[in-house]
Amino acid sequence: MLAVVNCSQLVTLRGAARPRVGAEMRELSIIEDGAMLVGDDGRIAAAGARSEVEPLIAGDCEVLDAGRRVCLPGFVDAHAHPVFAGTRAGEFEQRAAGATYQEIAAAGGGIRASVRATRAATEDKLVSASKRYAGWLLRGGTTTVEAKSGYGLSVADELKMLRAVRRLNAETPLQYVPTFLGAHEVPDEYRARRADYVELVIEEMLPRVAEEGLAEFCDVFCEAYVFDVDDSRRILSAARTHNLGLRLHADQLSLSGGARLAAELGATTADHLEHTDAAGIAALKSAGVQPVLLPGSVYALGSSRYPAARAMIEAGLAVVIATDFNPGSSPTPSMPLVLSLASTHMRMTPAEAITAATVNAAYSLGRGRETGSLDAGKRADFCLHDCADYRELAYFFGVEHAHAVYVGGRLAFRRGN
Amino acid sequence: MLAVVNCSQLVTLRGAARPRVGAEMRELSIIEDGAMLVGDDGRIAAAGARSEVEPLIAGDCEVLDAGRRVCLPGFVDAHAHPVFAGTRAGEFEQRAAGATYQEIAAAGGGIRASVRATRAATEDKLVSASKRYAGWLLRGGTTTVEAKSGYGLSVADELKMLRAVRRLNAETPLQYVPTFLGAHEVPDEYRARRADYVELVIEEMLPRVAEEGLAEFCDVFCEAYVFDVDDSRRILSAARTHNLGLRLHADQLSLSGGARLAAELGATTADHLEHTDAAGIAALKSAGVQPVLLPGSVYALGSSRYPAARAMIEAGLAVVIATDFNPGSSPTPSMPLVLSLASTHMRMTPAEAITAATVNAAYSLGRGRETGSLDAGKRADFCLHDCADYRELAYFFGVEHAHAVYVGGRLAFRRGN
Repeated sequence: MLAVVNCSQLVTLRGAARPRVGAEMRELSIIEDGAMLVGDDGRIAAAGARSEVEPLIAGDCEVLDAGRRVCLPGFVDAHAHPVFAGTRAGEFEQRAAGATYQEIAAAGGGIRASVRATRAATEDKLVSASKRYAGWLLRGGTTTVEAKSGYGLSVADELKMLRAVRRLNAETPLQYVPTFLGAHEVPDEYRARRADYVELVIEEMLPRVAEEGLAEFCDVFCEAYVFDVDDSRRILSAARTHNLGLRLHADQLSLSGGARLAAELGATTADHLEHTDAAGIAALKSAGVQPVLLPGSVYALGSSRYPAARAMIEAGLAVVIATDFNPGSSPTPSMPLVLSLASTHMRMTPAEAITAATVNAAYSLGRGRETGSLDAGKRADFCLHDCADYRELAYFFGVEHAHAVYVGGRLAFRRGN
Repeated sequence: MLAVVNCSQLVTLRGAARPRVGAEMRELSIIEDGAMLVGDDGRIAAAGARSEVEPLIAGDCEVLDAGRRVCLPGFVDAHAHPVFAGTRAGEFEQRAAGATYQEIAAAGGGIRASVRATRAATEDKLVSASKRYAGWLLRGGTTTVEAKSGYGLSVADELKMLRAVRRLNAETPLQYVPTFLGAHEVPDEYRARRADYVELVIEEMLPRVAEEGLAEFCDVFCEAYVFDVDDSRRILSAARTHNLGLRLHADQLSLSGGARLAAELGATTADHLEHTDAAGIAALKSAGVQPVLLPGSVYALGSSRYPAARAMIEAGLAVVIATDFNPGSSPTPSMPLVLSLASTHMRMTPAEAITAATVNAAYSLGRGRETGSLDAGKRADFCLHDCADYRELAYFFGVEHAHAVYVGGRLAFRRGN
């Protein structure tokens, strides 16, 4: 058994039987001078005030003194591309010098550059490159991360990516939730025959992915010049027949109808939504779709068009925020930086941002009963942050606040100094 | 003696006898597979290709294997307020919920809130609170930081702040350069008689600061509703008679004439410059004033009006970038995040940003012959960053890249894991 004592704030978010909406998003159920007990099964046995929890501590229990730090559930990063080979630092330099993301993509860069590097990498190499990022994610206090494929874009390379995710799940403390994103981009060899690539995704990739049990969700990059609404509908409808949950890159670069499609299909999430209008928000609401907002990519693309988080919260949507970690449009693995962006540029309060990054994110990945809050019975995924007030996580930005990170009650990262 | 070997890139910026301008800012003088020798005096004895440096390594020399990491000069953070008591996380929350910085200031918050907390703190308490931030600065790869007073605003409290800076200089590895900023804000007790406060600054504070040798520079927050151009001119002219160098918070919130005043007075730097026009840029150029750009505060205020870095570089100004680290408008100690902001939102290339954050920044603090590049004879202030390509520092954002930081050849920080 493990007892965590002497937390300045135990931020529990306890008791959410469903994702939180509206004013509930500001309710973190903070216990001052809190303590927590973790069983040998790696699950939370009790979380509460010191006076309630201390009598339960057995003699042979390991005691972790939090040193008046904040204890938070591990962050759940519900939209990420954390498996790739190569970086795109060269393109980053070109963009700083004035090239646009679209110009770079047209010259063969962008997602296609990562596809070339990822195809060229063996599964071993992909796993080893991605472990660097697993370390960064943990250092940021993230304990569960979605991992999309989508840099393979051939049957063999998409399967290679998803097998790499399975290995990362086994070989690192981080909990990966795999998503098949074969429809991330049209690969070079299908440039002139997009319809054939859509067929390949539906007829070959999806059945193989499902057969091997390599993914829980299917996602599509829905944008007029990539996969339009009709392509996206076909792919996601097929994915549903394989019992995959549905996610959608929607309305990122234009109002292409992605949010409405997500609502029509009853997708679990609609992601990005920078251009979604009021009708799109209403459609998401009536269909119970969770919006996943990705301010890191707005920032990294040098834009200032952030999604309308305030309108979505006020409409009663169960908002999620995530990193969109990827080597092109959002090279950040840091959930604390996403909290900063949410509070600074999307007018979410620090409490709303924390809710969006933990319990709401967990539900959006089908892990709402498992993680995302400090409730008895859940897996003991938590982080001690080196501050006494949780609001400092969003306030002091560019700093790694995590002091120690636990997944399933086991130490996954500890700051050495 | 210390030998640093096996650097993937030794980013030297060598040979700058003055701050770099124009196309020079893109020239980092990178040595692939570089090595460096540090003498027992803590100064760089040699920096060059492995084949040149290895023959110089004596038998009893300590060898630091950089493990194919990038070696960079320590960052020089030339505009910062890293000494304060209390945080303003509560105000941060209010701003996220919709209050403006100006509304919070009008209600007694803002700088005045930090003044109350700093006045209430003893010198010991101030030193101990600020050591937390010294640790963060070092972790970000910063080895020299400017430290402004300006949260005291009384003779005793301004002196207390500057004495705290002196102690931090002695008690931490970080190199502080002290700046007197008595004219940061008009304190509450002088609210109705600003002219009297200006007199206090000129007649009492400046002589005391100079007499005790507590500052190298004098700075003023020049803005119509705080200290206008006439006040600023009087204060800085007086500072010059005490042999202090001149800096100026100029044109941050409006085109108030700050850049022109800095040029008129031949100040060392003009800082912020979000609203400076072409005439202001030309004035800075002809007077040889260095612009210090502070994108962290633009970001943290939720604005998208970044200063015109591109125009300034093209005009031949020796641009500097800095954190503006402070508890209100820029709560980040991270120079890597400032590199990211510079490349992402000000169209500076990663190389230009590195130059602005090292050698140019060092000159702007009167330390150009001492630090800011890896030249033989300079103090061995350097950082090994955990990447093989220096561009990753600006590209992967929200991550602490520093692996080991040395000041004067002595280990100041090392990542424990």
